[in-house]
Amino acid sequence: RFGYFGRHKPEVVHLMFCNVSGCLTEGRIFLSLSGEEMVSINTRDTAGLRMLKEEGVEVILLVSRLDPVAQSMADKLAQRTGCQVLQVGAEPQEDLNALVEQKKLSWKDVAYMGNDQPDVKCLNLAGLSAVPGDAPVVASNAAKYTCHSKGGSGAVREFCEYILLQKKKAKSQVQQDRIDRHHF
Amino acid sequence: RFGYFGRHKPEVVHLMFCNVSGCLTEGRIFLSLSGEEMVSINTRDTAGLRMLKEEGVEVILLVSRLDPVAQSMADKLAQRTGCQVLQVGAEPQEDLNALVEQKKLSWKDVAYMGNDQPDVKCLNLAGLSAVPGDAPVVASNAAKYTCHSKGGSGAVREFCEYILLQKKKAKSQVQQDRIDRHHF
Amino acid sequence: RFGYFGRHKPEVVHLMFCNVSGCLTEGRIFLSLSGEEMVSINTRDTAGLRMLKEEGVEVILLVSRLDPVAQSMADKLAQRTGCQVLQVGAEPQEDLNALVEQKKLSWKDVAYMGNDQPDVKCLNLAGLSAVPGDAPVVASNAAKYTCHSKGGSGAVREFCEYILLQKKKAKSQVQQDRIDRHHF
Amino acid sequence: RFGYFGRHKPEVVHLMFCNVSGCLTEGRIFLSLSGEEMVSINTRDTAGLRMLKEEGVEVILLVSRLDPVAQSMADKLAQRTGCQVLQVGAEPQEDLNALVEQKKLSWKDVAYMGNDQPDVKCLNLAGLSAVPGDAPVVASNAAKYTCHSKGGSGAVREFCEYILLQKKKAKSQVQQDRIDRHHF
Repeated sequence: RFGYFGRHKPEVVHLMFCNVSGCLTEGRIFLSLSGEEMVSINTRDTAGLRMLKEEGVEVILLVSRLDPVAQSMADKLAQRTGCQVLQVGAEPQEDLNALVEQKKLSWKDVAYMGNDQPDVKCLNLAGLSAVPGDAPVVASNAAKYTCHSKGGSGAVREFCEYILLQKKKAKSQVQQDRIDRHHF
Repeated sequence: RFGYFGRHKPEVVHLMFCNVSGCLTEGRIFLSLSGEEMVSINTRDTAGLRMLKEEGVEVILLVSRLDPVAQSMADKLAQRTGCQVLQVGAEPQEDLNALVEQKKLSWKDVAYMGNDQPDVKCLNLAGLSAVPGDAPVVASNAAKYTCHSKGGSGAVREFCEYILLQKKKAKSQVQQDRIDRHHF
Repeated sequence: RFGYFGRHKPEVVHLMFCNVSGCLTEGRIFLSLSGEEMVSINTRDTAGLRMLKEEGVEVILLVSRLDPVAQSMADKLAQRTGCQVLQVGAEPQEDLNALVEQKKLSWKDVAYMGNDQPDVKCLNLAGLSAVPGDAPVVASNAAKYTCHSKGGSGAVREFCEYILLQKKKAKSQVQQDRIDRHHF
Repeated sequence: RFGYFGRHKPEVVHLMFCNVSGCLTEGRIFLSLSGEEMVSINTRDTAGLRMLKEEGVEVILLVSRLDPVAQSMADKLAQRTGCQVLQVGAEPQEDLNALVEQKKLSWKDVAYMGNDQPDVKCLNLAGLSAVPGDAPVVASNAAKYTCHSKGGSGAVREFCEYILLQKKKAKSQVQQDRIDRHHF
């Protein structure tokens, strides 16, 4: 079930979109008697996002307008990860199309990490796309890469390292295509 | 251990009862020094409940009168899932019988998800019934479907998808019975 | 590694001691910036303790004097499980000896669940004894039963069900000894 | 992937450095709506640290200056584990070199537990070094020992027991080298 199934890999990813709920978090929300709500993120994942930014990849975190917790955590997440946090609606693609164009990129220069039904269109569009290992089938069928790690437990880190590996390969100018075909 | 063992499947489920503690949550209660109490739910599961409602299945969440945490979370859960939350006693069946009749349904039109001893009667009665993968044997023996996922980690979602699949099959009018008998 | 390794089983257990930290909880303590501390327990386990009490087995929960969190949670745990909570020192056996005598029992009528070095003596003494599946080797070597479930995730429940099964077997007066020898 | 791969083992470790984030904790940070932040530690691990100290090994916990949570938890961690807590920068080795010299030790008398990129130099330098079982490849490649347990779930305990075993072997003066070579 795991691994990369696409044929056309982008040489260099310039922009990564990453869903917060279920990718950066486990998708778990803690509810308390007193009305407090909590989510958890992993330092391994935030370290991965930092590695991407150091290599010049812009990272934008996506929170759903339908998810009040993630939304109110936006500032906190932005501060802790150093990434821009963007609110998207039920169809993230509609919100992101304009942004991709505005940055003079096409979807095939974009990496996308999502974990459920609403992400399907973007997972299909993006040049590189991934879901955590515990994502529902509807999402993992659309993604080009299925992480071994689960959401909130290293899936984001795994995808970041995969993107960095692709960048390194592109830089080293090896005849990667041929090698890949023989070895896999 | 996993899978569906019943012979008579309802064509269409109109109503689903779902135990909160151990199905929608992990069954874990966080206790703090200051008296705060917390439970956790998963967005994957709440997304599953939303999918059911969009297909016209009514979902009623059950909290036990014996469980003070779940009880005081009722409003919060109702708000977050958009489902009605109902308090039941030590024998949920007694509370639910009237409700099923009042809705002019019989138990075989009902889907039930539970996870322990008190749910056994309802798991037996309901047309479709399931327990999370980590439920005690006493409950999983009574259920018609044992989820691969654990409580609070996608079991509710898995059962929701199973119910939707059954609805789709019923709609497409294939001679499902015959196919099933040959393939399983 | 799992299963029962003793030869002499008590016919009926009258008293069960159960360590809170690592058996009823995962052994995990949540620390917050503001000074709050949290532990988590599982309703599956507390349901198991209730089952034991209904069958006439007294359950006493043990918290260590060295563990300030568990200690301050004593009231809350007593209230939620309906069990007496007792503080023990670095050598639980010293605190419990008097109690066992006072109840006119011997250690072989006692069930003990522990999870680390300080519990070793009691695990050896008790007629029935168990550790969660994730206990350190030093403890699991001393226990007569190693649970499949981990601490805080059903280990207590599993041991409770095992004790109840033993009680049922003793009641039904079958020539259990002979059967056991042939089947295992 | 698990086990010890080095050839030169120190006879006795006098000092252990242990990263807090990802080793003593799971690397998970809980963020709440109200601004509260939480991490979790395991009593199994803190018991392991206590065992080391009883055998005369000094333990110093490391928190990153880049990680505001761990930093503000320093006092709480020091109090709960009885260990000194030290703040280190992006390159822990720079902060620790002086300390190792000041204690008239060399790096080969030191045990180091880390879990990510910034720990790589120290993992290479230390006489004994380990990472939790869920550490990124970049760290586990540098470590001499990869724990079976994950961070926050017994990895620290496992490493502590390994260190104590080495100490015992060194004391018992067996011709360990020869035995090892034949048996592994």
